[in-house]
Amino acid sequence: MQIERIKGFRDFYPEDMEIEKFIFETASSVAESYGFKRIDFPSLEYIDLYRIKSGEELLNQTYSFTDRGGREVTLIPEATPSTVRMLTSRKDIAKPVRWYSFPKVWRYEEPQAGRFREHYQFNADIFGPSNEEADAEIISLASGILDGLGLSGAYEIRVNSRIMMEDILNGMGIADPYTVFSIVDRFHKVSKETFVDDLMSVGLSEENSNTIYRMCSEASEPGGISGLFGSGKVSKAAERLIRTIDILKEYGVKSVKYDFSIVRGLSYYTGLVFEAYDKSGQFRAILGGGRYDNLAKLFSEQDIPAVGFGMGDAVISLLLKSKGVKAPHAKKSVYVCRVGTVKAERIASISKMLRSSGFIVSAEIMDRSLSSQLKYASYEGCEYAVIAGERDLENNSVTVRDLSTGEQEIVTLGDLVPFLEKSTSY
Amino acid sequence: MQIERIKGFRDFYPEDMEIEKFIFETASSVAESYGFKRIDFPSLEYIDLYRIKSGEELLNQTYSFTDRGGREVTLIPEATPSTVRMLTSRKDIAKPVRWYSFPKVWRYEEPQAGRFREHYQFNADIFGPSNEEADAEIISLASGILDGLGLSGAYEIRVNSRIMMEDILNGMGIADPYTVFSIVDRFHKVSKETFVDDLMSVGLSEENSNTIYRMCSEASEPGGISGLFGSGKVSKAAERLIRTIDILKEYGVKSVKYDFSIVRGLSYYTGLVFEAYDKSGQFRAILGGGRYDNLAKLFSEQDIPAVGFGMGDAVISLLLKSKGVKAPHAKKSVYVCRVGTVKAERIASISKMLRSSGFIVSAEIMDRSLSSQLKYASYEGCEYAVIAGERDLENNSVTVRDLSTGEQEIVTLGDLVPFLEKSTSY
Repeated sequence: MQIERIKGFRDFYPEDMEIEKFIFETASSVAESYGFKRIDFPSLEYIDLYRIKSGEELLNQTYSFTDRGGREVTLIPEATPSTVRMLTSRKDIAKPVRWYSFPKVWRYEEPQAGRFREHYQFNADIFGPSNEEADAEIISLASGILDGLGLSGAYEIRVNSRIMMEDILNGMGIADPYTVFSIVDRFHKVSKETFVDDLMSVGLSEENSNTIYRMCSEASEPGGISGLFGSGKVSKAAERLIRTIDILKEYGVKSVKYDFSIVRGLSYYTGLVFEAYDKSGQFRAILGGGRYDNLAKLFSEQDIPAVGFGMGDAVISLLLKSKGVKAPHAKKSVYVCRVGTVKAERIASISKMLRSSGFIVSAEIMDRSLSSQLKYASYEGCEYAVIAGERDLENNSVTVRDLSTGEQEIVTLGDLVPFLEKSTSY
Repeated sequence: MQIERIKGFRDFYPEDMEIEKFIFETASSVAESYGFKRIDFPSLEYIDLYRIKSGEELLNQTYSFTDRGGREVTLIPEATPSTVRMLTSRKDIAKPVRWYSFPKVWRYEEPQAGRFREHYQFNADIFGPSNEEADAEIISLASGILDGLGLSGAYEIRVNSRIMMEDILNGMGIADPYTVFSIVDRFHKVSKETFVDDLMSVGLSEENSNTIYRMCSEASEPGGISGLFGSGKVSKAAERLIRTIDILKEYGVKSVKYDFSIVRGLSYYTGLVFEAYDKSGQFRAILGGGRYDNLAKLFSEQDIPAVGFGMGDAVISLLLKSKGVKAPHAKKSVYVCRVGTVKAERIASISKMLRSSGFIVSAEIMDRSLSSQLKYASYEGCEYAVIAGERDLENNSVTVRDLSTGEQEIVTLGDLVPFLEKSTSY
């Protein structure tokens, strides 16, 4: 009886894990190079942690249940509430706080391309500063991770400011910008006609509705931001966004576009919002985030400005695969073959010597013919075979075979490590 | 309103994560040096996956629930069933298969020292070979990980063979060794009197009961194994265990003891069983595993011998803390201070230069006095401060301060990277 995996969940075989590990390790090491420190938190939290922030609608998409102790709990659907819970439950942590995490998160929704019921999500947040320096640093980190993954030039970062949007909408005489946000949030999902109709149905003029359509329809160069205010004075929020982009230039982040259609749902963002997209336009947003200065207050008496972003593993791994990006291999891999009546002890000691010199070593532990061993070694992706046979070993030697060319050479055990170190396969 | 964490779960602040990261990275890199490849699987599985193997008793200790689609699911209580499910659901994978994983696992039980409702568990398994070479390799890997964590000499590995136990018990005329296994499994939890009484109550003679007590009461040198058979012939299973230990010597694994009290519960092990213990005797088993040749057959039509072990993060991290083992820091960390009216752009470009040279760089993004910045830099554990002030920058220089000694020096921006590279702090 073969039991299946649950629909919408993934198994990761070694070939799938290669790219996942590359994402984990790159994101972590770039975050650490910015002074971010890793945290972690439970996969289960009290459901009230999300009730506060999200309301019942999101709760319907969670894996929630009552545990054996009668607690109403849920598999975490995102990282931010747990992160803020950790931060606000301790008073002794000096600001700014730069934290990153890499938890699994869960949503009960219909699986589709790039969306699963369970995924890994990288998160990075800066708590404390409320200024544009922090906004720029978090975008620079996001961009640094994509560069580290080999995607330089292949993506663009689209930024917006929810406060600036309010300023612009207020300038159009719109009293309730949030109604407009929720319509703008559906921009990429509806036709032009529906979009304009929706805006007019909440009281916008046809002219303003068409202007908003135009503003949403194309990401533009950041220089265009002041143009959004026509002949009027550019608002403070707009100036701030322009400053943020100026700082990003010094971080070497070039591919920044302004995009009025980025609102990031109806969630808790209070200023900057941004998303990164593959330039080919094939995929959903690779990552997204923004400023959320009011969230800590919901969980505590504390007022802690915050800016951060999240990146799921699903879209980025699809993108890396589509671009043929391969995880780099730092270490040489060697297969130690056992021929004839050579004792397992000899294989163990040769393997130990090679491992302690930094090689990846698979050793023959079955009792197969040499040709089967060599075939398996290639299958496993080893670069070299070290063939330990009776006759060679009597002379304290082994045969080293380059598995890509088939060339081989007899090498004494004393020379084996330096010989493999200087060999260049492929 | 502060929402609490659920009892029995842990938050990991940066200072807690240091040791967790050290465990993850060491275990992964030692496993990869043995040619093991990482896999991963869902945190939720159909409850039937455990029903097959474990029966209802274990199921009562799981986080099980019915999802919104009516599926009976559970948070995985261990890694092995998912690993075997993955293996048996594909026919194209060549043996031997060496896989490792590092999932979170969950048990609904009362929390106590070193036992939580959620923990990370490192797992490594070899599928395919049924011989002692594979048994030795898996123990050598376990030992290599403990050595990599700085514990050489501080632990011992206690081995046993369930088949050899059967041989010995059969030699005593005991027809049902499994009844004795379940009593032996409680050896460390009951008094001598209770233990001997329990054995006699299932039909053992007083003499045999006392012999078993004696065999359980002290881990002995492996040489003592043949003595267990008195003047009789040593069984095949005993010979195999002796061979395994011989191979381990060549792997450099010295601290191997024979221990009759190791049975590993009433679970699915079919031959070798082993556990690693801190020599101080302060803690539960650090890790444990063994051979389980019959499990794949429960999930599939396939007959796949297997040997493996699991190591939770809780006991090993307590042990590392108690020994004062610290995670090593590979990279130098630098704080870039911003003084006076220096623009954020300058700080961004200096930080970028240092990061691209491999330093960990936290940059000042708030607007604090230099003394506050230096205090914070020390708090964050930075080794150097790079102080960017107006006057120095006019001469294309910065001041570098060694945060441990307080010594400082003016360095040109062109010399900054080599200067920091050759500096040795502490």
